[in-house]
Amino acid sequence: MAIDYKKELENTARNMIFVHDPNLLIKMVVRMMVDKAKIAHVSFFLHNKEKQGYLLTVSRGSLNKKIPMDLVCIDKDDVLIRFFREHKSSFIFGREALLLDEAKSVLKGNKLKPEGKQQLAQVLYQMELLEAVVCIPSYFRDELLGLLLLGKKDSGKKFMDEELDFFVALNSNLAMAIRNAQLFKELEYELDRKHQLFIRTTIALAAAIEAKDHYTHGHTSRVTNLSMEIARRMGIKAKKNFDGKFLENLHISSLLHDIGKIGVPEHILNKRGSLTVGERNRIKEHPLIGVNILKSIKELSGAVTGVRYHHERFDGKGYPEGLKGDQIPLIASIITVADSFDAMSTDRSYRAALNKTDAIKEIEHLSGEQFSPQVTDTFLELCREGKI
Amino acid sequence: MAIDYKKELENTARNMIFVHDPNLLIKMVVRMMVDKAKIAHVSFFLHNKEKQGYLLTVSRGSLNKKIPMDLVCIDKDDVLIRFFREHKSSFIFGREALLLDEAKSVLKGNKLKPEGKQQLAQVLYQMELLEAVVCIPSYFRDELLGLLLLGKKDSGKKFMDEELDFFVALNSNLAMAIRNAQLFKELEYELDRKHQLFIRTTIALAAAIEAKDHYTHGHTSRVTNLSMEIARRMGIKAKKNFDGKFLENLHISSLLHDIGKIGVPEHILNKRGSLTVGERNRIKEHPLIGVNILKSIKELSGAVTGVRYHHERFDGKGYPEGLKGDQIPLIASIITVADSFDAMSTDRSYRAALNKTDAIKEIEHLSGEQFSPQVTDTFLELCREGKI
Repeated sequence: MAIDYKKELENTARNMIFVHDPNLLIKMVVRMMVDKAKIAHVSFFLHNKEKQGYLLTVSRGSLNKKIPMDLVCIDKDDVLIRFFREHKSSFIFGREALLLDEAKSVLKGNKLKPEGKQQLAQVLYQMELLEAVVCIPSYFRDELLGLLLLGKKDSGKKFMDEELDFFVALNSNLAMAIRNAQLFKELEYELDRKHQLFIRTTIALAAAIEAKDHYTHGHTSRVTNLSMEIARRMGIKAKKNFDGKFLENLHISSLLHDIGKIGVPEHILNKRGSLTVGERNRIKEHPLIGVNILKSIKELSGAVTGVRYHHERFDGKGYPEGLKGDQIPLIASIITVADSFDAMSTDRSYRAALNKTDAIKEIEHLSGEQFSPQVTDTFLELCREGKI
Repeated sequence: MAIDYKKELENTARNMIFVHDPNLLIKMVVRMMVDKAKIAHVSFFLHNKEKQGYLLTVSRGSLNKKIPMDLVCIDKDDVLIRFFREHKSSFIFGREALLLDEAKSVLKGNKLKPEGKQQLAQVLYQMELLEAVVCIPSYFRDELLGLLLLGKKDSGKKFMDEELDFFVALNSNLAMAIRNAQLFKELEYELDRKHQLFIRTTIALAAAIEAKDHYTHGHTSRVTNLSMEIARRMGIKAKKNFDGKFLENLHISSLLHDIGKIGVPEHILNKRGSLTVGERNRIKEHPLIGVNILKSIKELSGAVTGVRYHHERFDGKGYPEGLKGDQIPLIASIITVADSFDAMSTDRSYRAALNKTDAIKEIEHLSGEQFSPQVTDTFLELCREGKI
């Protein structure tokens, strides 16, 4: 069992940088130790802010069955933790690793004062409870990030100095990699949080604007859900999922498709009975008003396409540009079907709602005229499966 | 000049993880090489996506004066780059580092076919142009991330194998660290982009809602700028800057302070002449309508405080809750002053604008009644300095 420690260390350190899951990192190191150095069990306690302690995060080998993972937590003020937080092992033994046997003989001698002996005895008692013969702290800068506990070697032999130095160095690399991974996780979490904030605020403001039109309560969220449903199914049918960007654009676009209605006077939006030609034309302005509101936001350009063209018709008789067939971007064609279905199946100022079956029939009937056949087919498929 | 290579390598590798600026990383390594190994010059060419080549990113030592940094770029199809991209050095010499002298003697022998010799000769010509005697590639996985070029040693001696192995290992660690740093930068960039997207969309939607009130064009952005100006100055005066979170909340809060006006009928908002008591009460609902729109968004709770209380008065005669003095959160008191100043200095449906001087006098006059004296003082200070 000769290990080329230097090589192993370099390889492991190098590979560790790109693992951004702290638990997986610890597992990698623990597994390597158990396998290469033939140790009965190895466990790692990682600092956990919420629990204000050190949580048993990875355990491998014989101890595994005895102590339950993610439940055993050593309090941050526990004697074992304090001992390492105060760098006592380095002070007393001149190295970070604490060896049970070595410590026992120090306890018998006169090197330590009574209170020092008492503390060390408590530490050893803890180690014995955890069946550890070596304990190695993981420091990041001056913080105690974790504790690595080693059981006996399978061979029954003592650990060699070279092995211990290797474990200490490995553990130190591990600490760095864990912090790196944690920083990554924090950034990713922040990114997700920011995205959620953006989406939620957009939903809230879009809903507030929608509320001006008394007939469309919940319209935006229903259109959004239906559009996403259709797009996901179209992706599956085409045997390639749409990329995340397309779905994200569709999501935002559906949320904002009617945003331009903010520029249409309330008395027209909420007028009972039929509209004059002039009033109709005011309402038809809403896609371009929406585009105007959003056009300065470069990142939304994909989504704005859906806002601009969600009233185009497959036969070219729609607005604002009268695009035809494949000229109409898919993102808009999807919203058109979802938007129209929801409009048909809810009351409007100018007519009562169709029932769901009739609304579906109407969509089918208008496929190839008002609606893209490709989108309608998927919509109808979802209807047949009872998913709409 | 004995270097404990192993120790240096471990230390450098460990420190590198936490430098998230690729250029700084390269500088660290280059400086270490020039200083410890006494090399006349060391330069590093880093892969640059936009330029489709390898840009001279760091150069230290005697060559520094001769070739301009950030301007020298080796094309991705250059013979030197292709040589290393195809791992030719490893194939021919059995190691990643390419040595000028060693290569020259290979050129004289029969090891290579004519086309191989031709390529190698071109590579050596390039190295000589760059005054390099050693060239070490940086690979990440199988990609060529960069090239490290070493000049002669000051001593005139040849590089020892141990040194070269060390440089290769160091360079390999550097490649890992550079990728790690790039990933970090990308994440941070994404985070910033997402934040900008959130802010810009909020601005666009708030502006659209504001447009419903014909008298308040540009009001939101003026109030936001003024609020931020006041807050920054208050932070400086208190000799502690407000934390980023406060300023961020104030920013969002100012943008959204009048969002509730979406719930007030247009004919009331735009009525010319005086309002009835009933109409006035409808307008007074706008802070709580705003709160209702935003309350489900947990991350906005700090900002919502400003929306809720921006019509409270220091003397307790405001709305919606009639809070008094210090009961009113600072974020709201700041918006109140900015909002009122802007309202006074622009035309409204019910009266013409005051000129700026009179508006400032009015704010001063109402300090301690309508406005928080602390905020007013800062506002007046900015006015005296001509900043408002």
